[in-house]
Amino acid sequence: MKLYQGMGPNSYRVRIFLREKGIDVPMVEVDFAKGEHKAPVFLELNSLGQIPVLELDDGAIVTESVAICRYFEETHPEPPLFGSDAVSRAKVEMWNRRAELVIFGTIGNVALHSDALFKDRLTQFPAFAETERQAVPRKWAWLDQELADGRPFLAGESFSVADITAGVCGWLSEIFGMEIPADLKNVQRWNERVRGRPSWNA
Amino acid sequence: MKLYQGMGPNSYRVRIFLREKGIDVPMVEVDFAKGEHKAPVFLELNSLGQIPVLELDDGAIVTESVAICRYFEETHPEPPLFGSDAVSRAKVEMWNRRAELVIFGTIGNVALHSDALFKDRLTQFPAFAETERQAVPRKWAWLDQELADGRPFLAGESFSVADITAGVCGWLSEIFGMEIPADLKNVQRWNERVRGRPSWNA
Repeated sequence: MKLYQGMGPNSYRVRIFLREKGIDVPMVEVDFAKGEHKAPVFLELNSLGQIPVLELDDGAIVTESVAICRYFEETHPEPPLFGSDAVSRAKVEMWNRRAELVIFGTIGNVALHSDALFKDRLTQFPAFAETERQAVPRKWAWLDQELADGRPFLAGESFSVADITAGVCGWLSEIFGMEIPADLKNVQRWNERVRGRPSWNA
Repeated sequence: MKLYQGMGPNSYRVRIFLREKGIDVPMVEVDFAKGEHKAPVFLELNSLGQIPVLELDDGAIVTESVAICRYFEETHPEPPLFGSDAVSRAKVEMWNRRAELVIFGTIGNVALHSDALFKDRLTQFPAFAETERQAVPRKWAWLDQELADGRPFLAGESFSVADITAGVCGWLSEIFGMEIPADLKNVQRWNERVRGRPSWNA
């Protein structure tokens, strides 16, 4: 088994997940800056030219960070990071998606449409990036309201993959100069709780 | 238990899923055109003002179509629509996400940035919509290549939630005047197979 990974938020999500599970997987570094993820040999693994990619011992390929995490959830159920019964599994799915669609998607649009890293890969619309950049604090403010009930983690009492996704959004938000607003006390408390975990050094 | 749902692709995905499982759930129609999903009483259920929403008998709320589907997968495991072992569960997750991120996301950008329905809800960038519209046939062509091995469904031999997501992309693509190109024989065959199922009338 090999995990092809490198810089960027999606590889980071998988590395944190593996650390939380205590799983060691041999890793192959894919150099994003050199464009190794767009090289023919890599496109054979993932036609989308994206990392991370998990290659199983029989050659089967799993792409998409959450799909890779779900594979390890199945093979190493403890501690559960996708919930432990029907309702909690639904809640984790819901919160992982809310984090992705509301927050990650908005930050992603800022990056894709403004950062030099992507200028040869798509038609950038800087005005769209700017509108999305202005929306980011509102997305965090929405999450702050949602966390006003004082629960420790996004999906409830237990840390889950949804906290990894949203925590990596906070990390990414900072990288692109959009720190979580200081007055959002509920998000700030949650963020400190999540990013204080040893897995964050993954 | 109640399912709040209405027009649009995400409610449709859940209705198809329930039909495939043979589950009857009482439904409450939310009139998107009248803006009922943005009314205060609805925002109490889902602060994002989006359908579908599942309300359980104890008042617990599940939002996000895939999270709702996952809840029913847990409570009604047969037939499995999210895979049946570690590898197939990972593959279904991978293909559901590829369908969402590659195809659904692109069509969604066309709709959000060009359709009158959304003009009061976000700043529309018509040039961005046009770039995304031109990209849609390339996304279907990518899927066509992926299906060139002749497998019947996206994640392999079995119909799954990934086929529902991608099939609804085909439906949505047509609504916005972007039919799947006729020369993409693998996608055409797959699309006929999927949309010929009785669940498609849901």
